[in-house]
Amino acid sequence: MGTAAPVPITFLSDYGVADDFAGVCRAVIAKLAPGARVIDLTHGIRRHDVRAGSAVLADAIGYAPSGVHLAIVDPGVGGTRRPVAVRAAEAGHLFVGPDNGLLPPAIDRVGGALEAVDLEDSPLCLTPPSKTFHGRDLFAPVAAHLALGGSLADAGASIDPATLERHVVSEPTLEQQRAIVHADRIDGFGNVATDLTLAALQGHPLAGASRVSVATRSGRRAALRAQAFDDVPEGAFLFYEDSSGRMAIAVNRGSAAEVLEIRSGEEIELEPSP
Amino acid sequence: MGTAAPVPITFLSDYGVADDFAGVCRAVIAKLAPGARVIDLTHGIRRHDVRAGSAVLADAIGYAPSGVHLAIVDPGVGGTRRPVAVRAAEAGHLFVGPDNGLLPPAIDRVGGALEAVDLEDSPLCLTPPSKTFHGRDLFAPVAAHLALGGSLADAGASIDPATLERHVVSEPTLEQQRAIVHADRIDGFGNVATDLTLAALQGHPLAGASRVSVATRSGRRAALRAQAFDDVPEGAFLFYEDSSGRMAIAVNRGSAAEVLEIRSGEEIELEPSP
Amino acid sequence: MGTAAPVPITFLSDYGVADDFAGVCRAVIAKLAPGARVIDLTHGIRRHDVRAGSAVLADAIGYAPSGVHLAIVDPGVGGTRRPVAVRAAEAGHLFVGPDNGLLPPAIDRVGGALEAVDLEDSPLCLTPPSKTFHGRDLFAPVAAHLALGGSLADAGASIDPATLERHVVSEPTLEQQRAIVHADRIDGFGNVATDLTLAALQGHPLAGASRVSVATRSGRRAALRAQAFDDVPEGAFLFYEDSSGRMAIAVNRGSAAEVLEIRSGEEIELEPSP
Repeated sequence: MGTAAPVPITFLSDYGVADDFAGVCRAVIAKLAPGARVIDLTHGIRRHDVRAGSAVLADAIGYAPSGVHLAIVDPGVGGTRRPVAVRAAEAGHLFVGPDNGLLPPAIDRVGGALEAVDLEDSPLCLTPPSKTFHGRDLFAPVAAHLALGGSLADAGASIDPATLERHVVSEPTLEQQRAIVHADRIDGFGNVATDLTLAALQGHPLAGASRVSVATRSGRRAALRAQAFDDVPEGAFLFYEDSSGRMAIAVNRGSAAEVLEIRSGEEIELEPSP
Repeated sequence: MGTAAPVPITFLSDYGVADDFAGVCRAVIAKLAPGARVIDLTHGIRRHDVRAGSAVLADAIGYAPSGVHLAIVDPGVGGTRRPVAVRAAEAGHLFVGPDNGLLPPAIDRVGGALEAVDLEDSPLCLTPPSKTFHGRDLFAPVAAHLALGGSLADAGASIDPATLERHVVSEPTLEQQRAIVHADRIDGFGNVATDLTLAALQGHPLAGASRVSVATRSGRRAALRAQAFDDVPEGAFLFYEDSSGRMAIAVNRGSAAEVLEIRSGEEIELEPSP
Repeated sequence: MGTAAPVPITFLSDYGVADDFAGVCRAVIAKLAPGARVIDLTHGIRRHDVRAGSAVLADAIGYAPSGVHLAIVDPGVGGTRRPVAVRAAEAGHLFVGPDNGLLPPAIDRVGGALEAVDLEDSPLCLTPPSKTFHGRDLFAPVAAHLALGGSLADAGASIDPATLERHVVSEPTLEQQRAIVHADRIDGFGNVATDLTLAALQGHPLAGASRVSVATRSGRRAALRAQAFDDVPEGAFLFYEDSSGRMAIAVNRGSAAEVLEIRSGEEIELEPSP
């Protein structure tokens, strides 16, 4: 253990707020690392939606203090997926969670993985560990240990960071006159963030279009290129760069996801509109 | 910056708990003001319901420690409404949020606004600021700055506190034999708090009535004057002073809002009942 | 008041996250005991479900740091039930909440009640107390007082710990070839934890059965005995020891509660299946 003050722990999961899952993890951390602050990023990731969880975590990481990032969206808990802890290249960022693709996009944003351990037989695991609640029995104790300055080596067995699982996602495709993108994150307001960034759009006809045709399996709509919700009339569609740098589709004071009947992962075709 | 310990930051918004909006703001604060405690009042204000948000904040403020009050219900984000920070007359209360009527009712409860700044071109804004997430890019950094003892003057350009927007609300009307009031806050249990206080009711026939007729657009019901839910039978309506000092309508172990089919802002007619 | 650092306060309630009830309690605590950390266990207990609240609290307590446990599921607020504070035999565990059966199962897990006080006329109550929000006006101030090292005697009038109310629950019944159990906790994922523990099942034919017949009022299903969700096919029922030591019924990547149409407290008949 180090002697410095504990570093903060950010905490993201699909545990929801109806149950005590996140709360019991917070309790375990408070018991093991009384001085470590826990910052709840969200526990509202759609259940088992590793893709959405990894996008939310990656988008948040640049705003988070260095410290431990505890992230749990874990449909395979108790199965064969590895529990892992990872040190990123950027000083002071550590990650704890399942090795199912959830962590790498965020790790990439802070320099990539420098060091990783498999927590399967971690001596830090609460005894006896449950098969269904690794958050409480394994991930929270490891996060507490790291927050106190404990070493990765004491948490598990070293593994090659290159072997960390990556969630297979469809890449956006830019064609001459259109783009095929995917709904990456849908927030509670129904705003649909795609996997296309404004940076990637540079030079494409869509970048300069003032109107964009948005086609999903439920039909085709026209969206106005805008910067803020109130740039378009109430109820109108807008196509804009959202706060995470992603090109997104929204309805001013309405829900684009509801109107488009779209879910995370689905395809969207974008074309400049006359 | 002052050298004293940071003051706490209360945090209220309509961000909900499904997304990471509130969490990312907490992360920004933890990064900029590591020692400042964040006290989440609620993130469950109905989306864009500035009226409800201002009532909840005003009712909570008397129970909150002095410090920074970060409040965000902001349908016009990125539009023409001003982002502001305000110092109240009562020692130690500071407010940060949109200038759309959300803050003044709470500021009034702690002595009124003494000093205010426009945050539009605040040097504290994260660069580049997004047009759609001022909570993260502007309000949270300003709240962190103030929590650390930073000055209002360093946060923005001085404005006349008298120019702060006030949400236009209908006032309750007391007539000889009846009162016209409005649903101000509806909580998650369906209890309907009006804009009428017990104090304002003194001397009116309604004050002494043991039964009250409650008329809304969905019909007329009889409520029993009571002090606690269990003073009336299960399923019965009661008319009572709620915990915020407001006259309210509830159904014991049921939802008055559901039975009355009422929404925040709607009119209610109250009469003594024989 | 003691001079040591404040102890942490865990906080469980049925206040939900839509309103500011829990937030205002947190504000009161921050005002009265600025250094005391609040650990939210959950505010998602089903409204007024004292049975579920007591099971969740009891299951969480072993993972919580010693300190104050503030628990509020209080359908009879303002009525005749006593507000109480209790010191458990195990060093450092204190409980604050309504005397309606919510607390004793958790207190039993930390050695039983050693000392208790009735908070009805507590000098710590905010003045004037509301009849409908004892969380804010009574329980939160008492929790803050105890967190600061204040004595039980200063919080209320001594009562016999043996008089604490116990929630009447049906006990599980083990017959020769079957067990009659009850749904004790249903989590947000629809996993149904019963009041039967794995320990209690030892020696019974059900303990060794690889398939179990699960009968509820909505019909009869076959569940596979398993240790982890992924041990059974997606959509299949499993019968397993959950993370709290309770025998539970789940559907892998689905909701058992939804399929079984079951609610907390209802009866379940379990039989070994050929």
